[in-house]
Amino acid sequence: MNNYELGDIELLSGETLLSAKLAYKTYGALNSDKNNVILLPTFYTGTHKRNEGFFGANRAINPEKHFIISINLFGNGLSTSPSNADKKQRGSKFPTITLWDNIKCQHELLTKNFNIEKIALVTGWSMAGCQSYQWAAQYPDMVEAILPFCASAKTSEHNFVFLEGVKAALCADPIWNNGDYSSPPIEGLKAFGRVYAGWAFSQSFFREKKYKELGFKNVEELLIDWENDHVNNWDANNLLTKLLTWQQNDISTGPIYNNNFTEALNRIKAKAILMPCSHDLYFPPEDNEFEVKHMQNAELRKFDSIWGHCVANPGNDKNFEVALDNAINDLLK
Amino acid sequence: MNNYELGDIELLSGETLLSAKLAYKTYGALNSDKNNVILLPTFYTGTHKRNEGFFGANRAINPEKHFIISINLFGNGLSTSPSNADKKQRGSKFPTITLWDNIKCQHELLTKNFNIEKIALVTGWSMAGCQSYQWAAQYPDMVEAILPFCASAKTSEHNFVFLEGVKAALCADPIWNNGDYSSPPIEGLKAFGRVYAGWAFSQSFFREKKYKELGFKNVEELLIDWENDHVNNWDANNLLTKLLTWQQNDISTGPIYNNNFTEALNRIKAKAILMPCSHDLYFPPEDNEFEVKHMQNAELRKFDSIWGHCVANPGNDKNFEVALDNAINDLLK
Repeated sequence: MNNYELGDIELLSGETLLSAKLAYKTYGALNSDKNNVILLPTFYTGTHKRNEGFFGANRAINPEKHFIISINLFGNGLSTSPSNADKKQRGSKFPTITLWDNIKCQHELLTKNFNIEKIALVTGWSMAGCQSYQWAAQYPDMVEAILPFCASAKTSEHNFVFLEGVKAALCADPIWNNGDYSSPPIEGLKAFGRVYAGWAFSQSFFREKKYKELGFKNVEELLIDWENDHVNNWDANNLLTKLLTWQQNDISTGPIYNNNFTEALNRIKAKAILMPCSHDLYFPPEDNEFEVKHMQNAELRKFDSIWGHCVANPGNDKNFEVALDNAINDLLK
Repeated sequence: MNNYELGDIELLSGETLLSAKLAYKTYGALNSDKNNVILLPTFYTGTHKRNEGFFGANRAINPEKHFIISINLFGNGLSTSPSNADKKQRGSKFPTITLWDNIKCQHELLTKNFNIEKIALVTGWSMAGCQSYQWAAQYPDMVEAILPFCASAKTSEHNFVFLEGVKAALCADPIWNNGDYSSPPIEGLKAFGRVYAGWAFSQSFFREKKYKELGFKNVEELLIDWENDHVNNWDANNLLTKLLTWQQNDISTGPIYNNNFTEALNRIKAKAILMPCSHDLYFPPEDNEFEVKHMQNAELRKFDSIWGHCVANPGNDKNFEVALDNAINDLLK
């Protein structure tokens, strides 16, 4: 993993992020034409490490052919985050960061550090997919294709409400103390994970006991695993920072489109395949149906699966992996 | 409102509920043939008062024709509950109560207090609808028709997980103190309401800003209303008692069917119309599709609406009210 030092960054909110850095990792090599760049942003509880499940020597994205740049989201604990920021901005003092800010900084990394002018593909799951839309809207001349899966160009009001729920569960733990905790709010993190689990799969996933394919004997085992994942791997303020970024996701925010969402969609030049999951409870296909109507060169390719949002988590559904790789090949050919 | 004193009740769990009482209210009069009885159990955050939105002089259930008995669920603060129980069983010391226990006690009220032998219809929304199935399975010779709407004969595993989420949000507040609180766990109750709101309607309800029809300018106003409803109207232990009853809902529990769910469905003699809402996130129609296949005399009549589970809350959707009344008339004719 490498760190790219950005210095002090002026944010869309008007605040400044001090001594900002992006943590990233590359795989493969840039070719002489510089036309084999594939950008993978990270998802909500992801890092570049978890992105490694989306590519490989036998996959559509192949480090033997492509120059893959995997960039960590601000707030994920590797790029600048409440847990590792300049002391003046640590914890509860961390500023509000939008996807606009993330993508502006990722753009600097690509152009200044790598002298890259074109990106063949930006793709990702969930909040990573949201970043692919943001890239295509913010830098329409630079992005040749996007493939957001289980994602949206603008966080829907229902998705916002779902996130308010998990946030409320975490913040009900007074150890959280408005972000000024001295030890982790463990009960709050557990509650966060337990509420989240109900949204991550579909009703039919549970009806058909698909969780057994993940190695859980019953739902309680699954719930405890979700609790532990949040307690062991995530800092509360980091989670809440990224949650706020997610809630504010809207490609038309900022100086170019001034909140004209359909205009922002329309100005995306990238060839796009939007791949929602039929049973995703918080990124339902209906939101992508609206998007595809207003994009220049986009196809809606809904994937039917009772896995819901977690269909795309590497290892969960082999059929999704095949469909994803086929779509990526279609965009890259 | 009247109270029916049950004395000490032996529960399915083996525990005893001390000095139990059912709070109920009747409307209309029992006719001489005693064939005009309509039973309305109460839903999760309901009381007999909120059931009054389901009948009236111009409705299918009409107190001028029917003898309506509206019975409060154990745990709702009117019937025996953690908040009002015998001192030995108050608060965290309240025993586990199933729908089997509720219906056994409701049966005693009807047979011993009113000498009623036949019920023309048991109907209700959500957990009240669950009680209609329980009645028909537990006393198949007494119940002539049921109309559960947005309900199920057995709580699905996904529904169980959703309930674990709202419970975890409440219990993350240490004021709750494992049920031994001296003042209400307000932050926990707020979190409970905030998590719940995401499940109560559908994704499309929010997309189409239907909450404006409820008088809310934006989602935050809706969320605050849900917070306040729980803080102002509900005791935490009462909510958790009913939640556990809901999680354990399964008409095949108990001595008659010994957990043979399809057998229990098959032994229901009542004429039934099952009325799920197409967009209900926790009582999805798929669960009722299974049920109707195994019932002797049941029809599935799905109601299509983006209101989701709350389609049936009186006043929300006039079209649902019409469909409900038509179905009730079909069962009563």
